[in-house]
Amino acid sequence: MEGVDYLSDERKKAQFDVEAMKVAWAGSREALQVSDRMAKLVANDPAFEKFSKPTLGTKELFKNTLRKAAYAWKLINDLRLTDEEATWLRDYMDEPNYTDLQWEMFVPALEGQGTEEQKQKWLPLAKTMQIIGTYAQTELAHGSNVQGLETTATFDRQTDEFVIHSPTLTSSKWWPGGMAKVATHAIVYARLIIDGHFHGIHGFIVQLRSLEDHSPLPGITLGDIGMKFGRGAYNTMDNGVSRFDHVRIPRNQMLMRVSQVTKEGKYVRSDVPRQLGYATMVSVRQTIVANASKALSRAVCIATRYSAVRRQFGARNGGPEIQVIDYKTQQSRLFPLLASAFAFRFVSEWLKSLYNDVKQRIEANDFSTLAEAHACTAGMKSLTTAATAEGIEECRKLCGGHGYLISSGLPELFAFYVPACTYEGENVVMMLQVARFLMKMVSELGCKQPIGSAAYLARVAPLLQNNCVVQTAKGWLNPGAIVEAFEARAARMVVGCGQRLAEFKTPEEGFAELSIDLVEASLAHCQLIAVSMFIRKLQQDIPGKGVKQTLEVLCYVYALFLLHKHQGDFLATGYLTPKQTSLANDQLKTLYSKVRPNAIALVDSFNHTDHYLSSVLGRYDGNVYPKLYEAAQNDPLNDSDIADGISQYVQPILKQKLHSAKL
Amino acid sequence: MEGVDYLSDERKKAQFDVEAMKVAWAGSREALQVSDRMAKLVANDPAFEKFSKPTLGTKELFKNTLRKAAYAWKLINDLRLTDEEATWLRDYMDEPNYTDLQWEMFVPALEGQGTEEQKQKWLPLAKTMQIIGTYAQTELAHGSNVQGLETTATFDRQTDEFVIHSPTLTSSKWWPGGMAKVATHAIVYARLIIDGHFHGIHGFIVQLRSLEDHSPLPGITLGDIGMKFGRGAYNTMDNGVSRFDHVRIPRNQMLMRVSQVTKEGKYVRSDVPRQLGYATMVSVRQTIVANASKALSRAVCIATRYSAVRRQFGARNGGPEIQVIDYKTQQSRLFPLLASAFAFRFVSEWLKSLYNDVKQRIEANDFSTLAEAHACTAGMKSLTTAATAEGIEECRKLCGGHGYLISSGLPELFAFYVPACTYEGENVVMMLQVARFLMKMVSELGCKQPIGSAAYLARVAPLLQNNCVVQTAKGWLNPGAIVEAFEARAARMVVGCGQRLAEFKTPEEGFAELSIDLVEASLAHCQLIAVSMFIRKLQQDIPGKGVKQTLEVLCYVYALFLLHKHQGDFLATGYLTPKQTSLANDQLKTLYSKVRPNAIALVDSFNHTDHYLSSVLGRYDGNVYPKLYEAAQNDPLNDSDIADGISQYVQPILKQKLHSAKL
Repeated sequence: MEGVDYLSDERKKAQFDVEAMKVAWAGSREALQVSDRMAKLVANDPAFEKFSKPTLGTKELFKNTLRKAAYAWKLINDLRLTDEEATWLRDYMDEPNYTDLQWEMFVPALEGQGTEEQKQKWLPLAKTMQIIGTYAQTELAHGSNVQGLETTATFDRQTDEFVIHSPTLTSSKWWPGGMAKVATHAIVYARLIIDGHFHGIHGFIVQLRSLEDHSPLPGITLGDIGMKFGRGAYNTMDNGVSRFDHVRIPRNQMLMRVSQVTKEGKYVRSDVPRQLGYATMVSVRQTIVANASKALSRAVCIATRYSAVRRQFGARNGGPEIQVIDYKTQQSRLFPLLASAFAFRFVSEWLKSLYNDVKQRIEANDFSTLAEAHACTAGMKSLTTAATAEGIEECRKLCGGHGYLISSGLPELFAFYVPACTYEGENVVMMLQVARFLMKMVSELGCKQPIGSAAYLARVAPLLQNNCVVQTAKGWLNPGAIVEAFEARAARMVVGCGQRLAEFKTPEEGFAELSIDLVEASLAHCQLIAVSMFIRKLQQDIPGKGVKQTLEVLCYVYALFLLHKHQGDFLATGYLTPKQTSLANDQLKTLYSKVRPNAIALVDSFNHTDHYLSSVLGRYDGNVYPKLYEAAQNDPLNDSDIADGISQYVQPILKQKLHSAKL
Repeated sequence: MEGVDYLSDERKKAQFDVEAMKVAWAGSREALQVSDRMAKLVANDPAFEKFSKPTLGTKELFKNTLRKAAYAWKLINDLRLTDEEATWLRDYMDEPNYTDLQWEMFVPALEGQGTEEQKQKWLPLAKTMQIIGTYAQTELAHGSNVQGLETTATFDRQTDEFVIHSPTLTSSKWWPGGMAKVATHAIVYARLIIDGHFHGIHGFIVQLRSLEDHSPLPGITLGDIGMKFGRGAYNTMDNGVSRFDHVRIPRNQMLMRVSQVTKEGKYVRSDVPRQLGYATMVSVRQTIVANASKALSRAVCIATRYSAVRRQFGARNGGPEIQVIDYKTQQSRLFPLLASAFAFRFVSEWLKSLYNDVKQRIEANDFSTLAEAHACTAGMKSLTTAATAEGIEECRKLCGGHGYLISSGLPELFAFYVPACTYEGENVVMMLQVARFLMKMVSELGCKQPIGSAAYLARVAPLLQNNCVVQTAKGWLNPGAIVEAFEARAARMVVGCGQRLAEFKTPEEGFAELSIDLVEASLAHCQLIAVSMFIRKLQQDIPGKGVKQTLEVLCYVYALFLLHKHQGDFLATGYLTPKQTSLANDQLKTLYSKVRPNAIALVDSFNHTDHYLSSVLGRYDGNVYPKLYEAAQNDPLNDSDIADGISQYVQPILKQKLHSAKL
């Protein structure tokens, strides 16, 4: 029946104020209001319908997204939306497209790397979309190693120009979003060559297409790199390949805020701190962490609601079967992911404040916290994206067979999400960067005070000597004991790597040989940060009946789940005894029972619309089966009783006339 | 350049005879020959081209597969292929379709559950495909819990018929492959009702469609349940929904080998052992394990070859960068998966012999080994499919950004493979079945001798008392020490659960409360089986230079990788000390260096054709970049320079004329 809330009994079980939890999740009442308004704007506008997306062919799908992007831009202008509102609107539109590159890469790169003069020229064009830009860094054979890029930008003193050139096939720019079909301009990263000398990798503004007829400019070859994972997912984005054949651009199109090339061909560094680039990375990766919590919360919301609807086994006297959410095995897989979504949300909040702090310091020429902040964001990017990708797929499996249907929303969410593990810093490379930072900290212990997330290393002696004193399951409901355990585990693993590193002839050799252990130590460090930041959040005032108490339960679930999953580390480093890990695990199972009554209300707190979830299984009203049946009717194969191909390829078999069939 | 082998240097490094390894992988020289012949037959026949598959729309894709299935059936007949050859041919065709259901479910169900009379009538029709069958068990609201199915089959004494009926929406049959559009018949599982009494779930042969014009028969509603994960993957299969409105079938269409309904409406059990059903499950799940090793080997082959081609960082003096396969972090993720593929291959070989043994025993009315064999296959199904699904995605990530392209082959392999974690026994439900078996064994210790894979439990006293004696990293290169460690860990976890289970009021309550721990104990037991079977394989004669030695290295990698991953279990149960797990981990890293020179040759031993892999990154010749570039050109968006939609939806933005655009 329409209009009935099949989950109302579940909602009544909640022991906290859902509206207040929505505020806690959103970060503030204002943030909730703006995101809620934009979510509803998109959900209620038929122009943003996305139900038919999976059935569209490649070209139709792309065209359909172009239409939506234009419609969104019109709406943003007509309604005079703020930047914040516009960002939310694009997010709820939920279809990757060229405008993402415009606002997240092209404009920020101009702002961060352009001179005042360049900004005055290019930003107004970009911000009104008189030009559409992309960010052309990666090449066919070069991703993580930016210094290995092959594209060249050779200065021609005679004409005061740079010659942009792709000297090899492997130097083809490959992946930039929007580049294949839409972008009119790109910031092309290339090896700066002056008089045969290499002066590092720099960004150059290159016009790709005619602003008149949109055709590629002479010397430039553009194309799409082909289909990607999933049906919709990132296939709404025209990731492109480009090749440059001695393309000339004026000298003033090199982004020159940090380094300049003069008319005379002199390479000059300005006094603008080069470390600015790191601050940009901190900003970008903070957004990635926020997106991780968002993506995970979508998957968890779907799996939790469906787990309350779905029943299987255990009917008594002809009564209903047991809700699968009541099975301990289901809880042990689902609730840690629910807790992780909140953990990542609060980590991203903290990273945002970290970024603001770093930015202010840089402006005051204080770079003292930059390395630590950079390591934090690299590590949190890796930790949260890896866990989210895995978590989405786990949620899909938690929905059983129906989770495999596109109409569940989960396959497409997975296909859409997984590149986050690779882009903007491949996750293992990120952990190795954290390791470099940690090894530096360890080598300097005694001379230099470790700061921020690494401050615990100052207490390395007690962390290596003292062992955990928890003696009961209840003893684990203690933030101090938990943080101490995560600190001791991380410190012991980090210091252990440091000691072994010292045994190698060169640090580089040691780093290569120990890289597996270094990644494990970095993960321990990053999990400590995530747990600590969740705990720190709970030390703040969080209004609303039962809100803080419920979050405390989730915080313990997150920490003790990690402790159980990695109990090998805690035991191997000797900080915990088997008895203590066993008590922690007992407590974890008790906590699951405390999450259970709040589960549906908790996922309601994410405030996701049915449009945004695009999942029959995750519907707010829990009316799953009739809607699943209804959704199936829309499949193109259901257009006719007898499908195309049956008379040609099946009936000849049945009638034993295959020998004369045309196949 | 065409014809150049870019991986020839890698192939020269191999320390074993690749042709002999191919035999070891295939199981026998004959098995290699037949699979090789069929692989090439498919790869060289343009009718089986599958490159264009991802670009096809829903209907085109389905029709294209119908054509291939018909072509394959014609080939099977024209070439008079044996059943084994036909199975390989369908496998290499690599597109799920209705014939899979015909040969893997419909025919075996008739053979296993039909009476002699029924088999004589229906099997000739099915085997010549004059009828096409499917297997209609799961319903919209019922998957794992078969006893909860709602569809009814009510006996009508007057007409000597059964009335098949779908009493509710949730009773709609949902998922059966081939049912939506192709199948003419189904074995429908339903609640047998005679005179208002329920007599259990039984299978009934129900004709779905007219053999004349293929239209659904009166009272039967058929449809497709909609799109599934991925582009091609399982979307070539018409998984269906069906509803029955008092559909009448003659009494002799109930499958009556085990139970009969007489003309008088009497329900009679025959003396055919009911346990036969378990033997069928053993057979089906053995195939699933074999398919796991096959799917994982495909992913590992792609990731390994590409890891040798791809270079990143570490160029010295302008020389080439380092092959990513030389990074320890890459090895630590890739080589355990390579070892797992071999482990699963040998587990499936052993399960095959186990099935043959069980079948012979059942025929001789000996059911003594059935429960153990059933638990083994349930556990191995769960262990291998979960690890394979995860492993494929890990291989995709190991290919960096390019692994996200459909042309890498990995996204589609993942989408195709993951349902194996859910179908034919959901993986957690499977582990709980193993747990039930283990708890029974434990409760009977002392009275009854545990057999087969559980035989180690007879030595429970020493396994609980003695601890590991390994003192050096080299000490871990000892199959006895490894098996003992896995036995001790499993025994301690299993016995621990057994003891705690006894503390509950009822076993059912205890089982529910302890289910999380029971699943962990079952996994420990299953990993013991997998490691033991790999070791057992190496105790056999394996001919060929270096073959056994290389497999020994992989066996140690598999075991020590599991030991490291689950070191928490080994430490928590007290069998190993932190020093010993650390030594095992050191040995594991040494072993990676021994795998390295053999890596490419090992994946060559799988004997996969480029057609079967359908991966630009996994090409045999390693000619990755030019072919990646070439493959991209085929994307539909590259049909024209200016894509459809640009003039309507992009140019108005650029020219600031959006206000008058039609969106």
